[in-house]
Amino acid sequence: MVQPERFLRDLERLRQFGAAGVGKGVIRPAYSEADVAARKWLVEQIAEAGLHAEVDALGNVFGLADGSSLLIGSHTDSQPQGGWLDGAFGVMAGLEVARAAKEASGPPISVVSFQDEEGRFGVLTGSTVWAGRMSMAQADALTDHQGVTLGQARQAMADMVTGEVSADRFTGYIEPHIEQGPVLDVAGEAVGIVTDIVGIRDMNITFNGQQNHAGTTPMGLRRDAFQALSAFNEALNDRLRNVVTPQTVWTIGHVDVTPNASSIVPGQVRFSMQWRDGDADRLARMEQIIREAAAEIAEARGVETHASDMLGIDPVPMDAGLRTRLERAAEQVVSGRWRRLPSGALHDASNVAQLMPVAMLFVASINGISHAFEEDTSDADLVAGLQTLAAAVQ
Amino acid sequence: MVQPERFLRDLERLRQFGAAGVGKGVIRPAYSEADVAARKWLVEQIAEAGLHAEVDALGNVFGLADGSSLLIGSHTDSQPQGGWLDGAFGVMAGLEVARAAKEASGPPISVVSFQDEEGRFGVLTGSTVWAGRMSMAQADALTDHQGVTLGQARQAMADMVTGEVSADRFTGYIEPHIEQGPVLDVAGEAVGIVTDIVGIRDMNITFNGQQNHAGTTPMGLRRDAFQALSAFNEALNDRLRNVVTPQTVWTIGHVDVTPNASSIVPGQVRFSMQWRDGDADRLARMEQIIREAAAEIAEARGVETHASDMLGIDPVPMDAGLRTRLERAAEQVVSGRWRRLPSGALHDASNVAQLMPVAMLFVASINGISHAFEEDTSDADLVAGLQTLAAAVQ
Repeated sequence: MVQPERFLRDLERLRQFGAAGVGKGVIRPAYSEADVAARKWLVEQIAEAGLHAEVDALGNVFGLADGSSLLIGSHTDSQPQGGWLDGAFGVMAGLEVARAAKEASGPPISVVSFQDEEGRFGVLTGSTVWAGRMSMAQADALTDHQGVTLGQARQAMADMVTGEVSADRFTGYIEPHIEQGPVLDVAGEAVGIVTDIVGIRDMNITFNGQQNHAGTTPMGLRRDAFQALSAFNEALNDRLRNVVTPQTVWTIGHVDVTPNASSIVPGQVRFSMQWRDGDADRLARMEQIIREAAAEIAEARGVETHASDMLGIDPVPMDAGLRTRLERAAEQVVSGRWRRLPSGALHDASNVAQLMPVAMLFVASINGISHAFEEDTSDADLVAGLQTLAAAVQ
Repeated sequence: MVQPERFLRDLERLRQFGAAGVGKGVIRPAYSEADVAARKWLVEQIAEAGLHAEVDALGNVFGLADGSSLLIGSHTDSQPQGGWLDGAFGVMAGLEVARAAKEASGPPISVVSFQDEEGRFGVLTGSTVWAGRMSMAQADALTDHQGVTLGQARQAMADMVTGEVSADRFTGYIEPHIEQGPVLDVAGEAVGIVTDIVGIRDMNITFNGQQNHAGTTPMGLRRDAFQALSAFNEALNDRLRNVVTPQTVWTIGHVDVTPNASSIVPGQVRFSMQWRDGDADRLARMEQIIREAAAEIAEARGVETHASDMLGIDPVPMDAGLRTRLERAAEQVVSGRWRRLPSGALHDASNVAQLMPVAMLFVASINGISHAFEEDTSDADLVAGLQTLAAAVQ
């Protein structure tokens, strides 16, 4: 049987590594002193639980059950200014479930903390290398914002490395995680079972008009790049309505106006256009609508438009078998207080899905806040997540 | 009789002071070596024309006819990277008309080049002080972007100063100027007679929404500050349509999105809202519409809105008598190729209007370009402007 108090105590102990001193926040980026200390502590907990600890060259920490096992985990590194549960919840829940299974001689469960999920060096770096999507040599050449290479940074863990861990020993992967969004909290629900990790499309669009004096250029003779952006945005919101689901999102988050002066009609605007959905076909339909709207607005307003290369991450559907087990368990543990939902954020599970069946379980984020010191979840919901997980793996 | 070739030759000579070496551009900001040299040359031309040169403490250069006279002029300082005609056309046209009047013993005409019209230290600094809207002590304390005070800068002209010039000796002021906009050029017209110098209202508006993760925050739960700006802009364009004239302009030229990242729903947007019109009542009605639209959009979208203090410069109508003389002259000189139009840009005439009747005459700007090295006007249109001015003051 999982022990909620032991699990909450472990979460609290993990929080002390890199505690920010502001609320419950932590500062524990990959390979920092706090991160390495936390991973050493995790290795000790794994050993105490009677599991076999392995640390691979990149710094992914595994706690292995004997023989073939189900893997549960997430990551223990944090954002530069992060919350105490992002990643940590999944690793500590995995540890508790694996430990309890060992104690009860139940089905074998292993635990993992992937390294650099938060992308000091890349995107989901540890699971990307473990899943064979990038070589160790390529990863070593990645640099952080200060110009430090990953190859240099991982020397901080060199004495901990024991060897590589084959994916073949795992029958599947479950990643418990905080939602990092407001859906469960707004609905008063405790647990979410993830249907898919959404795909992302991201590009920059430019409108080039004509920079002019804001006093001497009549409205009818203007080719105002900001006005083109505004008209594009309204047209797009209108046209997407027939295509999207309530789970689809699209965002203009970055806007650069040139020359950006109150007395000058904007000559250029460059902005980010990002959209996410669980269905690759819908992502493609949205792309078509975006490109058409930009071209039509540009034509109508005498400006030129240009789109950058598009960044794309494909949607990852969760494994139906694992997902069904989690859904049944949720209905047992928090009857009526759970739902199916997509993950709008990326997770290590996206990479692990290349190797084995994967699923994810969410717990509610208070006010939907994450990647901030204020990030939190009630103890009751943390424990509901743990117990749902435990029930699913019985 | 004015001599077009002498006038064009003088314009060309003036252009040599601070010639940028790029097209016809000039670099002649107030009190720079090139500006002081140009003003010394102007004093010589005034003397040669048989007029009486006076230079006041701020550096405004006057060429005075005896007794009561009409004043014509503009400024000879330039933008840091300026065109050869902005200001220069008005001063050289004034010099030629005054010189020709003197030669012909016609009605007495004086000429002026105001100092720092381009605002190295303020806005229309020389005419502001001359019109008594700012004391010399206040002006001396103004600083440029390098931290130099006007009091220090004007020492470069200290040996030229002869004394103050009373406005009482002038019966009126005509400022010839390039249009600095595209209206005359687009219409194929040579000359514009200004109806009024428009008033300006300028403020910054902020929308404060909720910064969120662009993947995990459903559209329905967002309070996206950029979306509020876009909706405000569209609503405003729609509502202003019933209030404005073809001469009214409004501009969102400066936009700051926070945190301005492609994966984050914008939490704040701060933008400039500027509008110009010749009618103070219309400016006030527009202000009301702007404030109402911002409040309604904010309310509808669950964001907060705040407006900064508003900067206001009131419209200045041109004197009916002087304006009629210019209109009749334009119809003589360029029949059918002139129009009435407002000045969307500020000019020294705004200040001088506090003291005496003022009027303005525009010549076409090729492609509407000004405040740039490319600024230009055809010789034919420059001469048409000179001859219209000469005919008007007969």
